Amino acid sequence: MALLEREDHGAVARLVLNSPNNLNALSDAMLADLTAALAALEQDRTIRVVILSGTGRAFCAGHDLKEMTAARAAPDGGAAAFADLFDRCARVMQAIPALPQPVIAEVHGLATAAGCQLVASCDMAVAADDARFGVNGVNIGLFCSTPMVALSRNIPRKQAFEMLVTGDFLTADRARDLGLVNRVVAPDQLGAETLALAEQVAAKLGSAVRIGKRAFYDQIEMPLAAAYAHTGAVMVENMLNRDTEEGISAFLEKRTPDWTQ
Amino acid sequence: MALLEREDHGAVARLVLNSPNNLNALSDAMLADLTAALAALEQDRTIRVVILSGTGRAFCAGHDLKEMTAARAAPDGGAAAFADLFDRCARVMQAIPALPQPVIAEVHGLATAAGCQLVASCDMAVAADDARFGVNGVNIGLFCSTPMVALSRNIPRKQAFEMLVTGDFLTADRARDLGLVNRVVAPDQLGAETLALAEQVAAKLGSAVRIGKRAFYDQIEMPLAAAYAHTGAVMVENMLNRDTEEGISAFLEKRTPDWTQ
Amino acid sequence: MALLEREDHGAVARLVLNSPNNLNALSDAMLADLTAALAALEQDRTIRVVILSGTGRAFCAGHDLKEMTAARAAPDGGAAAFADLFDRCARVMQAIPALPQPVIAEVHGLATAAGCQLVASCDMAVAADDARFGVNGVNIGLFCSTPMVALSRNIPRKQAFEMLVTGDFLTADRARDLGLVNRVVAPDQLGAETLALAEQVAAKLGSAVRIGKRAFYDQIEMPLAAAYAHTGAVMVENMLNRDTEEGISAFLEKRTPDWTQ
Repeated sequence: MALLEREDHGAVARLVLNSPNNLNALSDAMLADLTAALAALEQDRTIRVVILSGTGRAFCAGHDLKEMTAARAAPDGGAAAFADLFDRCARVMQAIPALPQPVIAEVHGLATAAGCQLVASCDMAVAADDARFGVNGVNIGLFCSTPMVALSRNIPRKQAFEMLVTGDFLTADRARDLGLVNRVVAPDQLGAETLALAEQVAAKLGSAVRIGKRAFYDQIEMPLAAAYAHTGAVMVENMLNRDTEEGISAFLEKRTPDWTQ
Repeated sequence: MALLEREDHGAVARLVLNSPNNLNALSDAMLADLTAALAALEQDRTIRVVILSGTGRAFCAGHDLKEMTAARAAPDGGAAAFADLFDRCARVMQAIPALPQPVIAEVHGLATAAGCQLVASCDMAVAADDARFGVNGVNIGLFCSTPMVALSRNIPRKQAFEMLVTGDFLTADRARDLGLVNRVVAPDQLGAETLALAEQVAAKLGSAVRIGKRAFYDQIEMPLAAAYAHTGAVMVENMLNRDTEEGISAFLEKRTPDWTQ
Repeated sequence: MALLEREDHGAVARLVLNSPNNLNALSDAMLADLTAALAALEQDRTIRVVILSGTGRAFCAGHDLKEMTAARAAPDGGAAAFADLFDRCARVMQAIPALPQPVIAEVHGLATAAGCQLVASCDMAVAADDARFGVNGVNIGLFCSTPMVALSRNIPRKQAFEMLVTGDFLTADRARDLGLVNRVVAPDQLGAETLALAEQVAAKLGSAVRIGKRAFYDQIEMPLAAAYAHTGAVMVENMLNRDTEEGISAFLEKRTPDWTQ
């Protein structure tokens, strides 16, 4: 079995973190596999939606502390290795919103530290009702400073701060109430419900979803006037798409669109 | 009956989208009427609060797709017309937070696509409990890229993203839980409850509300230190207002203020 | 009794606003005492967490309106005095997130206007279930323009706007649902529950909490890529801390860390 498996279900690709022995830690090898898998998906026009899930007891428990400890043996105490690690990890986290396809986290068990960051970095998340979310690095003296970048852009700031300094976990229901998770389902329905959401999105016009996802993250960091100027141009581009013309015509004529993309 | 009606109730102006046959679509004519009505209100010191409502089955169902389709006949396939349309629409959406008076959306039925954007662009919103909110352009291949500018500044980002890529609707209760709506009321109380909220705000010192609303949207896009520098100056200006002096004196003397504005 | 008392409970300092006769108003003297107390805490490495509470009927009811009214006697009508006051107040509000130690508001009774701003400016807040929160300056003609800077960074914008223009109060439960408060407890448990939270945070590695808190507020105002570049460097610095090395080793060896800080 590979460290990271990919299973395609029609237009939906399911990436499975498959390293249960270390709770799917984001080791050097796992980060490399994720980087490669996301790069391949970026070019893959047959895939419209990506699911990110994990095997074993945890969705993902964050960094590989054993690997990190081993890096301390270097003459610089690991400084260069750590800088490189956090850079590679941050690239993976940013590759998710940058991917043309929507990415859905399918979360079971534990999502902690960089594992919680992975959930926060996905466009959407579905969680089993017994899943737990934490940025608990503070408990071992390593504040979750990079995870908080994604987390604090998902939930209100006082609640993010509390998680970071207490190390306390959120239940799935609380994660949904705060905005970190879209849907909470029974554990035995997690795979089916996540796939159903993915297939719902995969049935939309792919070019429209791609253009929209990119615009979503572009505009969210802009002042209001700039955001409107940017998305106005995106809407024009979208309107000039032949499949969008067909979609609107089909709607006005009360028929099913005949899309090519 | 006009396309956009205005009914004044004392210091409250109620704008009514009155084009039920096309679900109060934001046609060229409707956008022109809204632009003119907002420009008139901007100069109207007798009006302290504005309500935006609609007749028929929907509050507003977004752009006028028939008009947009007709624009494709131009030699450029409609590119110039679409750019102009989205620019005019974005100006209306930005004119609402820029208006001196608070604007309350009174939402019944459907608020979809640019109609949902209209709700999100208002300062506050009251919804009938059977109202529904969606940015469902994705269903016809036109991603709601401009509506998401307003929506993603009202509700958490994962929930906004889900609405955009699924086309699913929010109930009124869910819209309130997420932040898109302030209050949910019984359908037969919608007009009365919205007017009561408007009159409550209209009874405040108008000059203070005006200065505060402008500062609200100015500071929200600034870093913390700049926001404090800006609003500190606004507070000084507010303090030097004769009516504010009277308001504070009346409070200290436990009497009703005698305001001129 | 001092205007502002400080009680140390081990590594937790409790600052108590002690001016019940004017509902703990942020008078010139109170602002000076708060400024001095925060400056002293900034240098105090024995203190790991700060609690901010108040005596009497209110946590804090905002500015001292009598003092402000007296300032109108100056030749400029008070303009210079007001500018200076709002500047000093804004410095206190910004000194809280800038303080190395986490600050928890312990809120009972009323938290209004700049008193509500004080709650919003703290990193976390625990509230008695009968506490009430408002930015009700609008009722006397003085829009809460500086309080809204902190408030609108804690809760969704439509809900912040409603509070500002109506002057209506939030219950403690509603404040928690919106994000202004972390926990709501029975009034007779307020002190104990807040202290328990403070002690939980105080038991973490102090250097990690300090580095993390600073990074939290730095990154939250940055675009995503800049936030990751910044926090990546913070994580490297954190990793090179000897106590963090010990914390991670202890975790891997399933023993209690032996921390020096």
